[in-house]
Amino acid sequence: VTPRFGVFRREGEPARVGALVEGRVVDMAAAARAGRLTGVPDAGAVFSAESLNPFMALGREAWSACLERLPELDATLALDEVEPLLPIEVADYVDFYSSRHHAENAGRIFRPDADEPLPPNWRSLPVGYHGRAGTVVPSGTPIVRPQGQLRGGGGPEHGPTRALDIELELGFVIGSPSRRGQPVGVGEALEHVFGLVLLNDWSARDIQAWETVPLGPFLGKSFATSIGAWVTPLEPLLDRRVPGEVQAPPPLDYLRTEPLVFDLGLEVSLNGATVARTNARHLYWTVEQQIAHLTANGASLRTGDLLGSGTISGPEREERGCFLELSWNGAEPFELPGGGTRTYLEDGDEVVLSGEGLAEVRGVVQPAVNT
Amino acid sequence: VTPRFGVFRREGEPARVGALVEGRVVDMAAAARAGRLTGVPDAGAVFSAESLNPFMALGREAWSACLERLPELDATLALDEVEPLLPIEVADYVDFYSSRHHAENAGRIFRPDADEPLPPNWRSLPVGYHGRAGTVVPSGTPIVRPQGQLRGGGGPEHGPTRALDIELELGFVIGSPSRRGQPVGVGEALEHVFGLVLLNDWSARDIQAWETVPLGPFLGKSFATSIGAWVTPLEPLLDRRVPGEVQAPPPLDYLRTEPLVFDLGLEVSLNGATVARTNARHLYWTVEQQIAHLTANGASLRTGDLLGSGTISGPEREERGCFLELSWNGAEPFELPGGGTRTYLEDGDEVVLSGEGLAEVRGVVQPAVNT
Repeated sequence: VTPRFGVFRREGEPARVGALVEGRVVDMAAAARAGRLTGVPDAGAVFSAESLNPFMALGREAWSACLERLPELDATLALDEVEPLLPIEVADYVDFYSSRHHAENAGRIFRPDADEPLPPNWRSLPVGYHGRAGTVVPSGTPIVRPQGQLRGGGGPEHGPTRALDIELELGFVIGSPSRRGQPVGVGEALEHVFGLVLLNDWSARDIQAWETVPLGPFLGKSFATSIGAWVTPLEPLLDRRVPGEVQAPPPLDYLRTEPLVFDLGLEVSLNGATVARTNARHLYWTVEQQIAHLTANGASLRTGDLLGSGTISGPEREERGCFLELSWNGAEPFELPGGGTRTYLEDGDEVVLSGEGLAEVRGVVQPAVNT
Repeated sequence: VTPRFGVFRREGEPARVGALVEGRVVDMAAAARAGRLTGVPDAGAVFSAESLNPFMALGREAWSACLERLPELDATLALDEVEPLLPIEVADYVDFYSSRHHAENAGRIFRPDADEPLPPNWRSLPVGYHGRAGTVVPSGTPIVRPQGQLRGGGGPEHGPTRALDIELELGFVIGSPSRRGQPVGVGEALEHVFGLVLLNDWSARDIQAWETVPLGPFLGKSFATSIGAWVTPLEPLLDRRVPGEVQAPPPLDYLRTEPLVFDLGLEVSLNGATVARTNARHLYWTVEQQIAHLTANGASLRTGDLLGSGTISGPEREERGCFLELSWNGAEPFELPGGGTRTYLEDGDEVVLSGEGLAEVRGVVQPAVNT
């Protein structure tokens, strides 16, 4: 079982770093105090921090040393004895749009008369945009139905979204920073990646539809983004990579590489029933290419940067990673395994994202607040 | 003269908070140690910090107390004895699009055949998007010409931008945070604003043009955003407000207020010659409305959030706040006061933004790096 890192609290004690190993939590701060983590520089302070960022900033050598020591550590707690917190202090959050099947479905839904469902630049670069870092929350955080400005029949209206959606994504967490002005090449990009989480990019489709021209998604996405409470380090997942789809036309030199994607099964469940099953291998653009593109203009990476993959959908109907696709924007309500149908989320719905080697992401929809 | 706050370093000494008062720098850390700032909680730690954030997080009462004490403080240094640093740790950076003349000019340039230059939602909400917080830099930081993917004659190309631009903006800095799930009303929004800076949202128009559909500006903006090294607190600028343009149609209730804008003259100079003169009163949407909109979906404000106004342009040709407008996207090169013409920026060009009551923002364009 792949170990994972997070931050936890116990009643009356300070938050600190923990490692989830075979269902139990290693108290890394205690292990450091006991002198068991001598391979990690300044381990006492690093593991007493309230986020993984100081550990992530140390770089691959320290991460590897720590992973090697994990099996020997015995200062463990039961999982139900700890309260997991947001594991990282998010620096910048960038969300990509890297699944071809998702982008094609979105094109078919919103531009049904177009010959080509993909935007003209989609096969040339990993399309992305910046999201709100301050509203990234850990698994388990309730999601209050957001209010916002919507396109109404008689003009714009303000009210609760009627199209609350999820997006099933991988999130890549940056550990080692890069220098401003120095693009990171595809060949060196993975050196900067600390680990992976599942990510639910909650979306209000009606708010998004009204605001998105001319400058892109904003309040339709910024109310909450949930990530797993435990980050899976990259290293043990490297051997889960398989060749991705052949990229045609071949990308420009700064993006060119043999695309390797993660073969990790993923699931979306709604109120306990599975509504979608897909796989991270359906991503077209790789994280190396996302990083090379993101830094091509000299922009720097910081410890704690979070890179969302974009919704991951496969070629089949049941492999769609959001309700926009599953219900074809409400036009084709889908049947719930336990009976009934859904287009978008209702109050009280609980969504769980799960995936091989990754911590689950759970969230319950709460009614809009009367403001 | 309005006092301003920043962070500075002197050789061999730690960075700390300073106040710029009548051309000299008050060493706020020294003043706190000397017991001269007793109205500010935990002043010793707050003013020994490497950013204004701990001070900004204290809220309006502490800011006012500090402003009252400033005239009595005598631990001053000459401005040329200190190196000003980035004054704030930027949490989230949001850039708006709130000048009607700028948005109309952009519409006329890019959609010359449209009947209405403004996007359909423009008069209903303050259009905005998230930018990259990690590449906000202080005045004086050199700007290396960014490379990126461009639309070439025979398909996409990768190379240095040929359309490097500036954007003259006001930046509003959030001091007091708000709670996730609790929208901030227009009437209480100013309570959260610590102060103002000038902001240059450097832009590569060709990179931006190719990437911007479907998800908005990304690498065309993310390479650098310059802000003034000294933040002007809001309080002494409140009496510079004047009624703004009548908003028609009237905005929805959550955005409705008597719009007050800042009557502050602004200038852009290129290599020492003034190329544009405008005024912050030309903004249509106010910062109160931007904050009310930003938080309407429950998104929280954090200390250090930076809200750009968007390019500020007035009705006249010489009041345009970016070269896109000044040169009509290159179609109408404009004459430099010292001779010659320009469309976009050339290597070696120095741009200075200045404005009443605000610290200047200076930047020199350096050639693209051969990567």
